Parts: sequence; structure tokens; C-alpha cells
Amino acid sequence: MAIDHLQESVRKLKNPTMVGIDPIIEHIPAFILKESFDRWGETLQGAADAYRRFSYGILEALQGLVPAVKIQTGCFIGLGGAGTQALEEVTAKARELGYYVLMDTMRSDIDCTAKALADSSFGSVKIGSQEYTPYACDGVIINSYLGSDGIKPFTEHCRRGKNVFILGRTSNKSAREIQDMIAGDRIVHQVIMDLAMRWSVDLYGKCGYSEIGVTVAGTQPQLLQGLREKYDRLFFLVAGYGAQGANARDVQYAFDQAGHGAVVTAARSILYAYQKFDSEGRDYQARAVEAAEKMRDDITAYVTVL
Amino acid sequence: MAIDHLQESVRKLKNPTMVGIDPIIEHIPAFILKESFDRWGETLQGAADAYRRFSYGILEALQGLVPAVKIQTGCFIGLGGAGTQALEEVTAKARELGYYVLMDTMRSDIDCTAKALADSSFGSVKIGSQEYTPYACDGVIINSYLGSDGIKPFTEHCRRGKNVFILGRTSNKSAREIQDMIAGDRIVHQVIMDLAMRWSVDLYGKCGYSEIGVTVAGTQPQLLQGLREKYDRLFFLVAGYGAQGANARDVQYAFDQAGHGAVVTAARSILYAYQKFDSEGRDYQARAVEAAEKMRDDITAYVTVL
Repeated sequence: MAIDHLQESVRKLKNPTMVGIDPIIEHIPAFILKESFDRWGETLQGAADAYRRFSYGILEALQGLVPAVKIQTGCFIGLGGAGTQALEEVTAKARELGYYVLMDTMRSDIDCTAKALADSSFGSVKIGSQEYTPYACDGVIINSYLGSDGIKPFTEHCRRGKNVFILGRTSNKSAREIQDMIAGDRIVHQVIMDLAMRWSVDLYGKCGYSEIGVTVAGTQPQLLQGLREKYDRLFFLVAGYGAQGANARDVQYAFDQAGHGAVVTAARSILYAYQKFDSEGRDYQARAVEAAEKMRDDITAYVTVL
Repeated sequence: MAIDHLQESVRKLKNPTMVGIDPIIEHIPAFILKESFDRWGETLQGAADAYRRFSYGILEALQGLVPAVKIQTGCFIGLGGAGTQALEEVTAKARELGYYVLMDTMRSDIDCTAKALADSSFGSVKIGSQEYTPYACDGVIINSYLGSDGIKPFTEHCRRGKNVFILGRTSNKSAREIQDMIAGDRIVHQVIMDLAMRWSVDLYGKCGYSEIGVTVAGTQPQLLQGLREKYDRLFFLVAGYGAQGANARDVQYAFDQAGHGAVVTAARSILYAYQKFDSEGRDYQARAVEAAEKMRDDITAYVTVL
């Protein structure tokens, strides 16, 4: 099961983190952009080529250090067909290198569109007598605002060894506007988690956690502690580390006694660590490794992964 | 402003409907699929070619009859880079034919990802010294679960003549799970609409409606009536017509006294109207026209567009 793949990878590397692959043109090292532009011009194709090469470089550098990656589909799709072609290639490369691969779609839809998304994300688009896997990932993040109808087409794939993370309590500042609304004895983000628990029956992996996980904010340690106790079989994807203010001390509450049940995500602080050194970016891989090691060490000072 | 473009197009054609371009491989006429497969094989490229040609056929058939189209990005992106290339082309074709073009992304994100999405949807991706418009649309539908942070990067484009529809109350059955939760004197979906009203200051078009609209369910006439009264300056995108059970009598309440302020969407009942006739689909354009005319006539029996 995908959740076991994730938990086992974390245990093996003793590193409960996940790196976000979020290429942004303004932050890609200048020498990579130049090479791509020399070949393809300053075009969507050129930018997509730079995204692909930069992402490959990060994936190769962090192999064996970081167990899991979260691929930000919006960054790639923002470059049209050329960018989406690069997304296909980066997803395949991440799998090939042994990472647990999560696709961050943050979408939601119903009916046939949800099915199209779920099928293509999880690798079985049927075309005539053929089957294709444009995006070969282990899991996908989806938005929960539509309720069950938007989630069910994805959770059906959980029976075939894939997993789903549903947006629970996000780490952005305005998350409270909707997600923290209190209705009687319930809170919006907990209604989502209650649904996730309900749908999880018979979807538990050997690690004890469900194939259906949720995203939670690392920025509010008390909330995190309460959620960990209440939703003890939902795997947590913890956001907000670094740039948004959560530190290692805060995020420790997302983990269970064995240091399982959660991973902490970070993207820009790793990908673009080179920018702190005012370099041209030729050392972006070494700087990403340093930053990923530091993040691992900071968190494992509080959390021992058994 | 984009909302004026939408309202004016509706007035000109006396047709307050929007057709969803949702290509699905199982429903595309067999002769189109065969031609595409003959050329490209049973590949992602072949399917994308069929999506493009079918979408073009629908767009050409409905030109001058239907004022606006809603392009379902998930259907195309589900076919990877080839599908997304077709999405670029279909969006451009729809604009070229004079439609108001809405991109249905149903996504949401924050920070740089939201910016990447907003910029690419609204046509200004900067690559070196060049600018590109992968998806040239008039408006975009986004998910509201993340609150303001996920919406602001899009509404900033409203000052440059684009518009945004935010998911308010969706028409799917499970919408109530989250969207109808009552917190004190507020309901989740109305909190979204309150925010939309607040952000709309100085974003009103000549038609009186804001560049920020909301999606509402046509399936609940009483709710619709209440929302129309309360949010009298938000343009409504009415979903759930046909397949999900809303009829012309129900959706009339979305409109103001002048028959303005709303459009009713439909996709499969128009695109795949040919299937009711057990034909091979060679007449799909004529059947789509018939179905679109019927929908217009049914609705305008209740709503007079001045």
C-alpha cells in the first residue's frame, strides 16, 4: 500500500520530511535558464526545459536523503502543454529514483472530471485498447470543499495501493476564514477529518495508518496536538515549516510515539537554499542537500523515528 | 471588463446559458476518434487530437447561438502534455470565435503557485524578455476552501479586465457536508459570498455586477431566491441544470428583474446530445445546436433577457 511505502521510506532514511518540487522561473539558477534558453529560446518550451532540468537536478541530489517528494502540478501546468510534458517526465523520474511521489493538485471536482483526474493521476487512462500513465504517482492531494462526491473517485484507487491526502487545516493565514468555522460541536476542518476517518475503514496499511491522509498546519502546535490525539489513524502531511513560521519544536506534535504518522513538507527553503549565499546557483544541489540535512536534523532532535 | 463582456454577449444573443466543453473519450463520436487514432495511434496524442477536433466542432456549431463556454481543464490535463497542448488550442479557438471563455480549474493554492496559475490563466507568463499567453481566457473558476490567500492572486487580475468565479454553493449532492454548515448566524457558503462582496468594492462593471462572481446550485430554487436577494451584485454561475435535476422553472430565481446577473451552465446534455438518437455521432453538431436551442428556449420561457 502507498501509505506503507511512505512510512517505510521515512523509517529507512530516518527522515520524516517531504520536499516540494515547485519550480518558479524567477528562482531557477541563472545558468540553467541560460542553457535552456540557448537551446529553445525564451519560450514556454525553454522555461519547461529549465523546470525539467532543475527538478531532475534536485531529485538526483536528494536521492537517498529525502524519502518523498510533493510535485506542484500548478507550476508546470502554468507553462501550458510544454510544462505539462515536463510534469510527466519529472513525475516519472521521481518514481524511477525511488521516491514516494505525491502530486499536489489541490483540485477537486465531481463526476467524470474527478474520474478523469483520478485516473490520470493514478495511472490508467484507457485509450482504445491501450492504457497510459501520464502521471505515475503514489498519492495525490485534493481539495475537500465539494465533500464526498469530490473525494470518492480518488479513494476508490486506495483499494489498488494508492493514497490520497485531503486538505484539512491548511497553514496559510486566511485558512481560518472557512476552515475554523465552528458549527455546534464541530469545526469545518474536523468535519473533513471525520469523513476521512469514516471512509478509512478497511483502508489501513501495515503501518496502522489509513490510505486517506490529511494536510494539517504545523504553525499551531496546540491544534496539532489535539488533532494527533483525535485522528490517531490519519497520516498527517504537515505544512507551514520554515517560511510560514513553524519550527521543529512545533511540528513534533504531529508524530506518534514511534515517530510515525506524519511527514513535514518544505519546498523553497530547500530548492532555493543557494540564494542565501548570493551565488549564481551552480552549487544549488549541494546547498539543497545541506538544507535538507539541516531540516532532517532539526526535526529528529525532537522526533525519533523508530 | 470581463463581466460586461459576458453580460453583453448574453444580451446580444438573448441566451443566458454557458456550455461546458468537457471532452470525455467514452462519449466522443466514434468517427472522430477513428480519424485521430488513424493518424496518431491509440495514444495520448491521439486522444488529445480527438478532444481538440471535437471541441472545435462544438465551438463552431454553437457560434452565434451560445454566448459563453466553460472549458473543463481537468479533462485535457488528464491526457498529460498532449492534452494540455490541446487545451491551449481550444481556449484560443474559443476566444477567436468570440465566446466569453471561462476556464474551469476548480483549483486553489497560495503564494507563488496561485500566482503561477493566475498569471498563466490570465495570459502573462514572463519568460526572460518575452511574454506568453498559454491560456487566453476571460475568467476562471477557483476553489474557496483556502480563504482569501487562495483568491487574492486571481482577483488582482480583475483590475485588468478579467473575472473570477469562486465556488459558493455547488450543485453536487455532498455539497451540504461542508458548504451548508451553520456557524452561529452564518453558513459556510455564504461566508464565501460575503467575502466576495467585500472584495468587490471598485470592481463593478457597467452591468452593475462585480468582476468576482460565484457558483451556485440551480437544484434548490428557494436557496437561489434567497441568495439572489442577498447578493444582488454578484453574478451567478448556475450549475446542476439537466442531469443533476434543476429545470428552467428552478433556475429562473438566479436572475434579476432584467434577466441579467446569471448564466446557467450545461455540458454533457449539449455536447453529447447525439447519443440520445443512437446515431454514430456524425450529426453531433446539429444535435448540439438543437439541444442548446431547446435549453435557451426553456429558460427564456421563464426569464426575459432585456
